[in-house]
Amino acid sequence: MTETKIIDGKAFAEKLRGEIARKVAKLKTEKGITPGLAVIRVGDDPASEVYVRNKVKQTKEVGMNSFELRLPKEITEEELRAKVRELNDDKTVHGILVQLPLPEHIDGFIVIDTIDPHKDVDGFNIINVAGLAVGEDPYFIPCTPMGCLMLLKNYFQNPNNYPKDKVPGQKPLAGLHAIILGRSNIVGKPMIQLLLKEDCTVTIAHSKTANVSLLVKQADIVIAAVGRPEIVKGEWLKKGAVVIDVGINRIASPDGKTKLVGDVDFQSCLGIAAAITPVPGGVGPMTIACLLENTLRAAKCTVVC
Amino acid sequence: MTETKIIDGKAFAEKLRGEIARKVAKLKTEKGITPGLAVIRVGDDPASEVYVRNKVKQTKEVGMNSFELRLPKEITEEELRAKVRELNDDKTVHGILVQLPLPEHIDGFIVIDTIDPHKDVDGFNIINVAGLAVGEDPYFIPCTPMGCLMLLKNYFQNPNNYPKDKVPGQKPLAGLHAIILGRSNIVGKPMIQLLLKEDCTVTIAHSKTANVSLLVKQADIVIAAVGRPEIVKGEWLKKGAVVIDVGINRIASPDGKTKLVGDVDFQSCLGIAAAITPVPGGVGPMTIACLLENTLRAAKCTVVC
Repeated sequence: MTETKIIDGKAFAEKLRGEIARKVAKLKTEKGITPGLAVIRVGDDPASEVYVRNKVKQTKEVGMNSFELRLPKEITEEELRAKVRELNDDKTVHGILVQLPLPEHIDGFIVIDTIDPHKDVDGFNIINVAGLAVGEDPYFIPCTPMGCLMLLKNYFQNPNNYPKDKVPGQKPLAGLHAIILGRSNIVGKPMIQLLLKEDCTVTIAHSKTANVSLLVKQADIVIAAVGRPEIVKGEWLKKGAVVIDVGINRIASPDGKTKLVGDVDFQSCLGIAAAITPVPGGVGPMTIACLLENTLRAAKCTVVC
Repeated sequence: MTETKIIDGKAFAEKLRGEIARKVAKLKTEKGITPGLAVIRVGDDPASEVYVRNKVKQTKEVGMNSFELRLPKEITEEELRAKVRELNDDKTVHGILVQLPLPEHIDGFIVIDTIDPHKDVDGFNIINVAGLAVGEDPYFIPCTPMGCLMLLKNYFQNPNNYPKDKVPGQKPLAGLHAIILGRSNIVGKPMIQLLLKEDCTVTIAHSKTANVSLLVKQADIVIAAVGRPEIVKGEWLKKGAVVIDVGINRIASPDGKTKLVGDVDFQSCLGIAAAITPVPGGVGPMTIACLLENTLRAAKCTVVC
């Protein structure tokens, strides 16, 4: 029976935010710059409400300026793009984030591509997507895949977790076989590029994949990002696999209330996986921490890039 | 013993060029437009010499205008970009191709990104790379992966080659497991996106991959694009796999001359693979045919897009 390490994303993110706060304070003192993050919300999607509130709160906590634009859902695409351009020109704003989903009459790609790539802290602008796709260093990497990679690198950088047959001098994840479940533009696809860059062998599975459990069985790293509650079972795993659960699904709880679960059946993985992220408290907190990290980077770039 | 079908890329490309020639003639008669392809060569790399000569010859054969710019290897990046901009503005030029590799003092990415994305028939411009990376339809898909996909779709569209457990109504490659050997920006990485779009499960292996033969053993489709002569062996294959060999390697022949071989040990695959592309005469001829297809598309777009 393997003892499964629970990867504490909450603690990791807290530490990261602490470091960001120190760097923000230094940037203020030494260069007189306060990093600013603008979040644009269109309409009143209730899920976005909670998410934006958390972003605003944490942005302020690390000492950054938070700008929140709430726009009516009737806004036209051109009016929304004009708002984005205003923020592009605003020197107090270093990062711009357009909260998705947008109303149906607005083309999200066009709006996102209006953001100055140097302020695109979500990493979804065409310039940053293409940079990642050709293995160059884009200005910004999307926050959730970036958070997953940080947790993985942190885990495998520990010599105790380092596979025995690893070639010295290689990157920490080199040669490991990762399977990504889900091929979204927000998580799965950027994750392919990030893991290839770390010299992983990568398999991408999705709703049309046959025998997914047999594929998972071979993987050293499992990234679950399909948005279906607890579909990945412990018995699918290779013994000693490291599991990163990106899913956040709200399901009915036996007590009549609801609860949050991931895409992985957490309990069934204990004793089989070498390490696993819980839900909540795993990947989730990393996303906003990485957004703040990107915003800090954007603000620093106005000085040194 | 499986009888292995030899996928005749030469014949397929010839047929495709025939169709292109007919469409070019129609475009001339009906719209007065002759598609034009400009090829820029910098310096005098001898491998490029042969390749460009073939492109020019085939461009003319299908009735298109061929423009060839030979520039000295001392040209500066800015001078080269100025030439590209001239071609961007030239209404008789519908496709622009900058022959790689470029001299070391020139940043290839910057030059390629200077090409108008609507004329980027090689599909390497940042706008087209990003389009493919997010699963949108880019203006152009890189020619070699496009040729590989055409051969695969043509093979699996034949009901006799259709896997028995295929779900009716799905795309012809849906659910098949493809392994791509090699992660280059020219072949491997765009191939990932194209195969994902066809609903394949995709594995990418490369020089850091452990146990590559065990991974190949599970794949229904093997795309070899690593540039190492005959490293993929028949014994690695699953019985009935379809093998697409992108490699073109010149090696010493027993008679003291040289010969061209692929990345796959062709003879050893016979009787195991269901189908395989030979080298030469497999993927190679498809690349230029797809370049002409892209140029035709670019010229048509000046009328209808």
